[in-house]
Parts: sequence; C-alpha cells; structure tokens
Amino acid sequence: MADQKKLVEAITPMNEDFAKWYTDIVKKAELIDYSSVRGCMILRPYGYAIWENIQRILDTRFKETGHENVAMPLFIPESLLQKEKDHVEGFAPEVAWVTYGGSEKLSERLCVRPTSETLFCEHFAHIIHSYRDLPKLYNQWCSVVRWEKTTRPFLRSVEFWWQEGHTMHETEEEARKETLQMLDIYASLCENELAMPVLKGQKTKKEQFAGAEATYTIEAMMHDGVALQAGTTHYFGQGFAKAFNIQFTGRDNKLAYPHQTSWGVSTRLIGGIIMTHGDDNGLVLPPAVAPIQVVIIPVAANKPGVMEKARELFARLKGLVRVKLDDSDNSPGWKYSEYEMKGVPLRLEIGPRDMENNQCVLVRRDNREKIVVSLDELEQKVPEALEAVRKGLYQKALDNRQNMTFDAKDWETFLSIAQKGNGFIRAMWCGDEECENKIKEETGLKSRCIPSDPALREPIADTCVCCGKPAKHLIFWGRQY
Amino acid sequence: MADQKKLVEAITPMNEDFAKWYTDIVKKAELIDYSSVRGCMILRPYGYAIWENIQRILDTRFKETGHENVAMPLFIPESLLQKEKDHVEGFAPEVAWVTYGGSEKLSERLCVRPTSETLFCEHFAHIIHSYRDLPKLYNQWCSVVRWEKTTRPFLRSVEFWWQEGHTMHETEEEARKETLQMLDIYASLCENELAMPVLKGQKTKKEQFAGAEATYTIEAMMHDGVALQAGTTHYFGQGFAKAFNIQFTGRDNKLAYPHQTSWGVSTRLIGGIIMTHGDDNGLVLPPAVAPIQVVIIPVAANKPGVMEKARELFARLKGLVRVKLDDSDNSPGWKYSEYEMKGVPLRLEIGPRDMENNQCVLVRRDNREKIVVSLDELEQKVPEALEAVRKGLYQKALDNRQNMTFDAKDWETFLSIAQKGNGFIRAMWCGDEECENKIKEETGLKSRCIPSDPALREPIADTCVCCGKPAKHLIFWGRQY
Repeated sequence: MADQKKLVEAITPMNEDFAKWYTDIVKKAELIDYSSVRGCMILRPYGYAIWENIQRILDTRFKETGHENVAMPLFIPESLLQKEKDHVEGFAPEVAWVTYGGSEKLSERLCVRPTSETLFCEHFAHIIHSYRDLPKLYNQWCSVVRWEKTTRPFLRSVEFWWQEGHTMHETEEEARKETLQMLDIYASLCENELAMPVLKGQKTKKEQFAGAEATYTIEAMMHDGVALQAGTTHYFGQGFAKAFNIQFTGRDNKLAYPHQTSWGVSTRLIGGIIMTHGDDNGLVLPPAVAPIQVVIIPVAANKPGVMEKARELFARLKGLVRVKLDDSDNSPGWKYSEYEMKGVPLRLEIGPRDMENNQCVLVRRDNREKIVVSLDELEQKVPEALEAVRKGLYQKALDNRQNMTFDAKDWETFLSIAQKGNGFIRAMWCGDEECENKIKEETGLKSRCIPSDPALREPIADTCVCCGKPAKHLIFWGRQY
Repeated sequence: MADQKKLVEAITPMNEDFAKWYTDIVKKAELIDYSSVRGCMILRPYGYAIWENIQRILDTRFKETGHENVAMPLFIPESLLQKEKDHVEGFAPEVAWVTYGGSEKLSERLCVRPTSETLFCEHFAHIIHSYRDLPKLYNQWCSVVRWEKTTRPFLRSVEFWWQEGHTMHETEEEARKETLQMLDIYASLCENELAMPVLKGQKTKKEQFAGAEATYTIEAMMHDGVALQAGTTHYFGQGFAKAFNIQFTGRDNKLAYPHQTSWGVSTRLIGGIIMTHGDDNGLVLPPAVAPIQVVIIPVAANKPGVMEKARELFARLKGLVRVKLDDSDNSPGWKYSEYEMKGVPLRLEIGPRDMENNQCVLVRRDNREKIVVSLDELEQKVPEALEAVRKGLYQKALDNRQNMTFDAKDWETFLSIAQKGNGFIRAMWCGDEECENKIKEETGLKSRCIPSDPALREPIADTCVCCGKPAKHLIFWGRQY
C-alpha cells in the first residue's frame, strides 16, 4: 500500500500552454522546488543528480584538456568590478549588493558575483610574471547571482549553478584556439550526451559578452521553435589584462599583456533538455545524464518467482547501467506513468509470461517502442536500447529544427515568417547594428549567430534582408529564452 | 632552464613562530592566494585538488548511506532566519546582508547563508506529509559566509567551502542514530584517509550549535597542542520542525513533528592536515588526498637512457597512483625541495647507477627514509610505501597527542598545566556552566567534549576540578583554533 495514495497527476498539454507544460514538468518530475527567496530555486535530488552527471562529463573533459579547478570568493568589491569599463556597464545593473557585515555598515559595497572575470584577473596579476607561467587554464564550479526581474526555473533565475572557465595565454592565436576548443567541448556534450542538436557560431557585436572581443555560442532550438543559448565562450583580447595590469616577460624579454578567454555553461542546460525532449507524459531524459537509466517493473508481482526474477535482473544490470527496481505495492500502470513523468529512458517489464519465454520487454521512453529481449542477451540489449533512445531523441530534435528553420531573402518574407510563429530564420545582414535593432523592434527576433559551419553560412542573397545594402553575413535569427 | 630562476624559499621554522610557519606554508605550497575581499581566500589548483579528493571520499560514503545531494539558495530572507529563536541569536550577528538588487532597495534584507537549516526546513515543510516521506537524507556541497573579525586561511574565514547534511526522521531514535553514524564517517575520514587522530565526543550545552539539542564533535590536536574542531553533527529534536510547522501523518494516523539532524565538515580540514603533519620543510600530505602521490625525479637526467627509464616508470605507475614526472631542467636538489614543500608523500629517484642495478629509490616525505626497490616489484612496493607513510603520519600525530594530554585532578594542577603550554587537559566537571566559564576566563581553555569512548571518560576524580562539587563528567579541555 506504501505509495498507493499518491497519483501521477496529469500535466498541461504542450500545445495548450507550453510555458505551463514546462513549469508542470519541473515541479512534478521533482526537479525543483520554489523557496521564499524571489527568483531562486531549490534543486531537488532528481534535478541535482542530472546536474551532477553533466558536471562529471564536463569536468573529465576539462581536465583532459589541461584545465585545473579553483575556487574564487563569492564577493567582488565594487571598485574591483569597476576596473573594466564595458564589463561593469554590463553587469552593475543586475547584481545583488552586500552592504552590511553583521551590524556593521561596510565601507565598500560588495556585489555577489554575477561572473568572476574581475576576481580571476586580480589573481592572475599576482601569479603571472613570465611566459613560463602561461598558459593558466582555470575553471570553477559555483553558483552566481543576477538580479533578474522575470525568472523561470533553469532558464533565467536570480541564482544559478554553472562552471566558468578562465584562461590566460601567451598569444592571441592560442587564446582564440582555446575559445573554439571549449565551444567544441560544449557542442559535443549537447549533441552526444544530451542528444540536443546545437548550432555553433559567433555572436554579433551587439550580442557579445560585456567586455569581450568575440563571443561564440551554441544555440539550441526548443520544441516550440524558440532558441536557447546553451553555452558561450569568449575571447577577451588584452582588455582586462590592461585594466588589471597583468603583464609577463615574454620570450623576447619584453613585457607583454596576456590574451584571455572565459567560457561557461549552466543549469540552464537542464531547461534545454526538458524543452527539447519532453512530451505530454512528462520529462524525457537522454540516457547519459538520466539519474535512473532503466527502471525494472515487475508485472503480476504476486505470482511466484516474479519478484525474485526482477531482483535477479536488477543484480545483473547493476554494474552496467544506473538501474532501479520498483518493488513497491503500486500498480504497474501507476509505475509506468510515474517513470514516464520522470523521463526514465528505458522501462523493463518482467512478468510470468515473459519468464515462461525466458524474455523481458523493454519499452523506450522516447517513442514507446516495445522490444522483446531474450534474457540471455540482457547485458547486450539494454545498452543497445539506451543508445537507440539517444539516437531517436537526437533525430527527433534535429527534424524539429529542420522543420522550423526558414530562409528569408527579403523583408516581406522575413516579416511573414516571423509573424506566423517561432523558429529560426536564415537571412543576410549588412553588419550594421541599426538593422539588427530594427529587426528586434519589429519582430522580436534577435540575431542568434553567424554559423561556424561554412555550408550553413553560404550566402542566400546579396543584400541585407532589412535595409537592402550589400550583405556581409548570413545570420540565424530567432526568439529566445 | 625553464624554471631554473625559481627558488624554493625557506619558510619560518615551526618552533620560531607557528602561526607564521602556517601562513608561509599555505602560500608557498600554493594552496591559497589572498584576494581584495577581506577574509576571503582563493583556493588555488593545488589546494582545491585536496578538497576535491576529500569531497570524493565523503560523497561516496554519503551516497552509500542513502543520502542525496541537493542545492539550496544562497540567500535567506531575514524573516526566515528569525523563525527559530536560538538559531537566529547564534547567527544574526555574523552574517552578510544583501540590501540592494541592482539599483533597487530590497523590501526585506537577505542574508548570505551562514548555514542552511532554515532553508531546508522551509523545503521540508513542502515535501513532508506522511511517514512514507521519511526519512529525508539530504546533503549539499557549497560555500557559506560568516562575518568573522579575525580570519586565517582554512581555519576561520569569511567564506569557506563545506558540506552540510540535513536529515528528517520519523523517530528520535533514528535521528540520534544518524547523528552518530555521520560522526563515525567523519572520524573514519580523519583517522584513515587524513591520518589525523580525532577524539569523538559530545559538546557541553554551552558549546552546542545554535538551536541544537545535542552536538557531537571530532576534536583533533594540532602539532602545537592546540585543538581543532574538525567536524560536528547535531541532533535538533523537533525544535525547528515546530518553528517551521513541519508535520507528518504517522503510522498511527496522528500528526507528529519529525526529528532532525544536521552535520558538516569544511575546508578547515585542510588546515588540520597542515598543522597535524607539516614540518619545517613544508607541507606533508596524507596519500589518500594528495594531488600528487608520487613524484618521479630523474637523477643525472642527461645520461643516456635515464629520461627514457623515468618515462617508462611513469607509464607503469600512471593507472595505479597519482604520479607526476618532473622532467624539467631544474636540478634534482631543487626538485627535492619543491616537492617536499608541496608535501608529496613519496619521491621516486632514478639515475644511471639505479638503472645498472635494476632498482630505484623511494624516499618517504614523512621521515625521509630511503627504500631501495627492485624495478621488478615497483607496482607492489609503491602502494606499500604510501601505506607506510600513512601509518607513519598517523602514529606521529597520535604520539604527539598522547605526549600533550594531561590529567588534572585539582585546580592547582589544572592551572599549572594550562600555564605551561598547550595540550589537552582531562579533568572532572560538575556540569555547571559557571565552572566552564570560570575555566575559560582564567586559563583560556574551553571544553572540547565529553569523550564517547567509555575508557576515555572513566572518572579520574570524584569532584569538579573547578568548584569541588560532585563531578558529573570527565571533560577534555583545550585551547582551540
């Protein structure tokens, strides 16, 4: 009877209200809870376990590429934040300020870090003296705070969890290479482990990070056709180094400023997973980051031998995948709904008739396909089915993106596509911020990026879609979360 | 020539100035850097890697004992902090207050969490309704802020990194068991992996955590005889549950308040490692948490075959231990000092003569013992030598504690021991806070704990060492960091 009373409640259908569908999922799949701190979320065990899996994958790749973890202070003195002009302009309006320590008013306000470039630069100035001290390849896992007015779990919150990489290099070439290397690592995480296709590219100047010379991005498209900026990497040139007076003696014995990068992804990726793969039955998790990859559900569990067999299968799978056996008294039907809501990629059903035939049934979460598997081949078929789920999720998301990406060679077409609904619009641009602003004002669409893939940035027209002047770049445009 | 210019600078000898010796080590072993944020430290890669190793060990044990990780907000609204009376009294004087978000003054101040009982309780009230929802066994890894006036790296800083476990149970018995289980996990980490003997026991009421009914502690003794409270676990009873109105329907269908615990260890443990094992040549790291367990140093590296052999040994050890090959141009002597400063537990020297004899030399960091090892037995002897270092460190620390623990049956003896220097004093106590206060005032010593081990709390006299009234408990007293 244990959890019998608990019912899997229905969630709002996607097509009825996508925003409500989203918040239903984050609550009912027990990813988060709200707290009394405005705009701050609580990551519950199931949500945090997804983040831990993402962390493990990325942390391994960061270390393989020579990066080291550090921890910087939570606070930034106001004077330190102000050292780099563009940076402070970008962030000062949206930071939380500490003004009292105990009962004592502070002589200088401290902001709660919105990002840590300034802290890293202060430290780099202490430890970088010679080209022998370079490169410095640092990363930290932490939470940051941005005083957002409108918040949504995972997508935009006052506090969120992320990693921020900060590196210093001897040459511009090396720093630029780092920026692209980290973008590739992010893209690989998204495309492989998260089964989420992303568009790699460079941001326009208007959309660059505060203080950066170049910002690169991976842009994902959610199920509703709205873009999600899933990760960014920045090349800073020597701007911060000059502002913070970070100098090193080069191989030529002359003083020089190092070249800097930073890069980050956050718990926002979990929002991306939800909106890329989820459906009207709940969350759908890509196997690589699913806290439970396979759930075993005994059918007619009171029949002799069923529970024993279920336990045996659990023991066989335990070292191979993240597996859970639900041996509670709830009905199989209830359990099916529950683990569908939680997005478990694979369900394994085992009942008396299966036992007679020395088989079990695997049910894929992504398309509900049933796969009858001989118990002799269990250890081989389960990982195969998980891989099939991954591929299925990726293909579905890719199809969605392809179906919702449109070319616009002239302003009429652009407007009519933008008015019809969401999606990416590919259109030529003259390079003027004025046109970028006009497009934003009249359609709500922002430039996503100039794609990195030469095939994707092949010109589709000669003139800017907005002003008709000669075009410089092909741009992907879209609404964004 | 790479790092030739860099010299391993001498550090202040321990006996000359223990405090200066300590800060020399944290800086010169590159564990931390200072920032312009008062009292906040930067954990550099080498320091952070020690913390990562501690985290990995503990996180595994927490999960093995059924705990789940979560993440709570960084901020606590003032009204939430005030819900439990004793708790707010303990913490309000030492918290940092956020009063502005961007340019907007907040209607309610937010404190930066000094600890998260109140946040967990607010969440527990949302999710605990039935005995079926219990126990909740949660933990989070994060940093917390306490506005300390006097700070020292790792030991007492405005921001520090820790884990905080928060659990809710159906019965008092289960909650008390949890409190002791987690104390055992902490003690096992300290005694085994950190090679740091600890005294387990219960705090007096005066030294209890703000809001707790019982606080348990592990107390380590540093090389200078001063105590370090290395970890604590708390049984809260139902106090917070009542203040936050957390109620569940019990098996008897009646409403009841759950029983609560919390427990934590922090980066302070790294301070403990330094002051327990370090010596005048620098840091000495216990192998289980050393970022580099073995450093290979080629001797006469320009002689034919030496560097090749060093690389071969590196390849052989790589999957077995955390090993580094220093193939830089620095002299072997410089390298010896450098890795002694960094506390690497084992040095492996390999030179032409060793090669002739098919051997290498292992040098233990703890006692500089040289062990000649046949290269045929490398994979066996290196882990053995690391284990010998661990045992050596533990024994040395245990001897130190034993040599600096004294019994005092009367006030004269107590005073004279306290005046002579540091160390633990074992003495009987009547149980009155008045005597505890008097001892503190007159000697600077605080009660460490009533030891858990029955052999250690065996009465050594009938009367209180301070007032002469009948004694209730044997107490360990000592100065503290």
